[in-house]
Amino acid sequence: MPISLGELATRFGCELIGNPDSVVSGVATLPNATAESLTFLASKAYKEQLSSTKAAAVVLRPGDAADSPVATLLHDDPYACYARMATVICPPPAYAPGVHASAVVDATASVSKSAHIAPHVVIGERSKVGDNVYLGPGTVVGPDCEIGDDCRFIANVTLARAVVIGKRGIFHPGVVLGADGFGNAMSAEGWIKVPQVGGVRIGDDVEIGANTTVDCGAIEDTVIEDGVRIDNLCMIAHNVHVGAHTAMAGMSGIAGSTTIGKRCMFAGMGGAVGHISICDDVIIGAKSYASKDITEPGTYLASFPAEPARDWAKKVGRFRRIEALQARVRKLEK
Amino acid sequence: MPISLGELATRFGCELIGNPDSVVSGVATLPNATAESLTFLASKAYKEQLSSTKAAAVVLRPGDAADSPVATLLHDDPYACYARMATVICPPPAYAPGVHASAVVDATASVSKSAHIAPHVVIGERSKVGDNVYLGPGTVVGPDCEIGDDCRFIANVTLARAVVIGKRGIFHPGVVLGADGFGNAMSAEGWIKVPQVGGVRIGDDVEIGANTTVDCGAIEDTVIEDGVRIDNLCMIAHNVHVGAHTAMAGMSGIAGSTTIGKRCMFAGMGGAVGHISICDDVIIGAKSYASKDITEPGTYLASFPAEPARDWAKKVGRFRRIEALQARVRKLEK
Amino acid sequence: MPISLGELATRFGCELIGNPDSVVSGVATLPNATAESLTFLASKAYKEQLSSTKAAAVVLRPGDAADSPVATLLHDDPYACYARMATVICPPPAYAPGVHASAVVDATASVSKSAHIAPHVVIGERSKVGDNVYLGPGTVVGPDCEIGDDCRFIANVTLARAVVIGKRGIFHPGVVLGADGFGNAMSAEGWIKVPQVGGVRIGDDVEIGANTTVDCGAIEDTVIEDGVRIDNLCMIAHNVHVGAHTAMAGMSGIAGSTTIGKRCMFAGMGGAVGHISICDDVIIGAKSYASKDITEPGTYLASFPAEPARDWAKKVGRFRRIEALQARVRKLEK
Repeated sequence: MPISLGELATRFGCELIGNPDSVVSGVATLPNATAESLTFLASKAYKEQLSSTKAAAVVLRPGDAADSPVATLLHDDPYACYARMATVICPPPAYAPGVHASAVVDATASVSKSAHIAPHVVIGERSKVGDNVYLGPGTVVGPDCEIGDDCRFIANVTLARAVVIGKRGIFHPGVVLGADGFGNAMSAEGWIKVPQVGGVRIGDDVEIGANTTVDCGAIEDTVIEDGVRIDNLCMIAHNVHVGAHTAMAGMSGIAGSTTIGKRCMFAGMGGAVGHISICDDVIIGAKSYASKDITEPGTYLASFPAEPARDWAKKVGRFRRIEALQARVRKLEK
Repeated sequence: MPISLGELATRFGCELIGNPDSVVSGVATLPNATAESLTFLASKAYKEQLSSTKAAAVVLRPGDAADSPVATLLHDDPYACYARMATVICPPPAYAPGVHASAVVDATASVSKSAHIAPHVVIGERSKVGDNVYLGPGTVVGPDCEIGDDCRFIANVTLARAVVIGKRGIFHPGVVLGADGFGNAMSAEGWIKVPQVGGVRIGDDVEIGANTTVDCGAIEDTVIEDGVRIDNLCMIAHNVHVGAHTAMAGMSGIAGSTTIGKRCMFAGMGGAVGHISICDDVIIGAKSYASKDITEPGTYLASFPAEPARDWAKKVGRFRRIEALQARVRKLEK
Repeated sequence: MPISLGELATRFGCELIGNPDSVVSGVATLPNATAESLTFLASKAYKEQLSSTKAAAVVLRPGDAADSPVATLLHDDPYACYARMATVICPPPAYAPGVHASAVVDATASVSKSAHIAPHVVIGERSKVGDNVYLGPGTVVGPDCEIGDDCRFIANVTLARAVVIGKRGIFHPGVVLGADGFGNAMSAEGWIKVPQVGGVRIGDDVEIGANTTVDCGAIEDTVIEDGVRIDNLCMIAHNVHVGAHTAMAGMSGIAGSTTIGKRCMFAGMGGAVGHISICDDVIIGAKSYASKDITEPGTYLASFPAEPARDWAKKVGRFRRIEALQARVRKLEK
């Protein structure tokens, strides 16, 4: 949606250096921006790209404004400010209300008149779909689900059963919510399935990435609080509780019954074992996993980055030499 | 399904201390149980919750009975006993037989009259669907598949082709069975795809979690034996053979042509490289992978749990110091 | 497709030792081959199976021919040669052109007359589907996509939006292309979603495995070059650039804005952090991840294979002893 720099500055509380009547209609990176683009400079790594940008305007910190060849919108947090502006310039697509003829909605389900139900969607018994919800093609909503207003399910998302979601959630293709958790009791005849009868409760403003799974609770609910962001291919096991505004990068996994605090961050392939508690404001590093309760905020990690195979072989060899070294020191001491 | 304590005791071989005519109609955790709930105590960690429970009855070990304020069902393995009882109290949903009008069944496929085929299901050429099978919405069964009696496919499951499944299997949303394995031969012109012509054979009583994939064999079949339990987001590559009653927690991966024994367990993010053989009764720890044949039952692992970043940095630093330390010892020895 | 040994030899440049009129109609492993099967010997590990094979013919290196009890097709690279021959003997299924009655194709989309559009497919606004494309059941093609000639989407694949694909690509079930990347800016009110407006560009001859995700770019496109092979359950984050003929085994993940060179290989559960550059011809080992730029071709790794739990505990203990050992050496030095 085209918008003038003046309006952007007013609406988002920036100082504008430049012509308030200039209009931007898209976003771009510094090097590829055109006279219609808004761009931003948030990281020093890209500073050198500023001087040659051809953007209509750059969102940046006040201290960087002098180096801009074009109009600037000054903000102390240019990335967040850019995000807000870009949401206005490039809004998510709008969909006409209505239920596609190929969708199958159970007679006991209720769907808001303002919702858009795309082709081949299925909505199960007793489920409720709120105002302005978008259920993309192939999405399956099982029984006893509730979907809050303004949620978007891009396509081929599955809610198995008993999933209650707040407002403004975004769920990407392949997401599976409310499938049975891994509950098995060993017996003489092999594994016995433990019925998984809990549900999933998801707060407002949650976004979940493609092919991520959030299992239903074994007895009580699995809970994702407000504002949580989960990337692709993550796994949230049964009865996990994820605190508000926690973010998990791709391929992270949280085992059953673990509680994660607020504002935690998991780097890619991070995780936590089951039945532990992690306090607020904890960062788990790349390919690292928490194995016991964490009670102090801070960064936790345990992974070795890849190095040339020969160097790594040496590192592994050093482990062995320690024993011998110890024996030699013992001998010297005698 | 409501059931009396007396009938539970009789059917599952427990001693009942309490009124046999009391009826339970649901399951609950110790703290949240009501006068209609069955609950259980299997782990000491929850023992302190026993004294204040308001359940109708608690399944527990005989030694814990004295501390229960309510009726008890005594069993040496309370978790397995609870699982069996919960299956009766909270049975999976029942579905009326029939093929939904929107489902597309190939003329050469055969579907049992007792099967329930949900909306938007597709069943391909020559495939066979057994008695009482539930094919949930959006499930695609490709050509040449056979699905045994009483299997349930929750929704949006895909059987690519040539998948043969035994009885009573449960397949959660997003599961993909029988897709091509990763078979590529390098050549001067780049990778050449190696046709994947094998199938997948899955035994009885297998449960596979959301978004897990089991590839077809390159030439012969990939095999999952009876009673195997696989959690979400796991990968079973082509020509893997998984022995009966093996269990794999979330995000585990087994590379091609590896054979896993019976009753093995993989913790979360565990795995094995390709072309190896793992004997029966092996446990692979969290985030650990087997790199060569394992011929002795037992627990195998190799992962460091996350620790405060500063401590981990010290640990990494120690690696380097070993070399210097060795030099100093050498000098002392001279 | 049945074919004579003579024709195979001629078409693929092999020397044939045996009857050129013998016909093969399938492929098999050495031990299970029958008089109608083509098989191959590429690895010494299977050499002992050669003497008892009952195949019609074996593709093998000239040096192994003397040990074959049956006809041989000689080639210096028997695996690649077998792959080419198997593609002729076991071609992918052919589909009649046409759009199934249950498919929903937007009025602004264009679909080649030679394409096969299976049941319950959805094709969005302005998208284009090329000649001989196969869109399997349940596949969703969002708006503004372009699919090149001869591509195959097996089933339940999702293209969220703005995905442009070259020719002859193969996309397995559950693949998600073009979903939003993980773009979030922290603010006082929590995470703000950064609109993801880039697309995905995929070259010719790319194959992507089941349940793998490739996110759209944040502003510019995510790029997968020609001939890339990606296995199941991998994650390619926004603005990653994967060079031609690179191969990634299952569960590998590349974080945002990282550039991977040509002909790289990632072993299972491998990966790379974001915003780095990896040169051509790099191999990343199993469960290892690149954490910074790699400028030299070669093998990089950092993972410990699982070992008996007791041995691993010793290894971990050695870390601690190093400090004590150092103190003792210091004392000896004084």
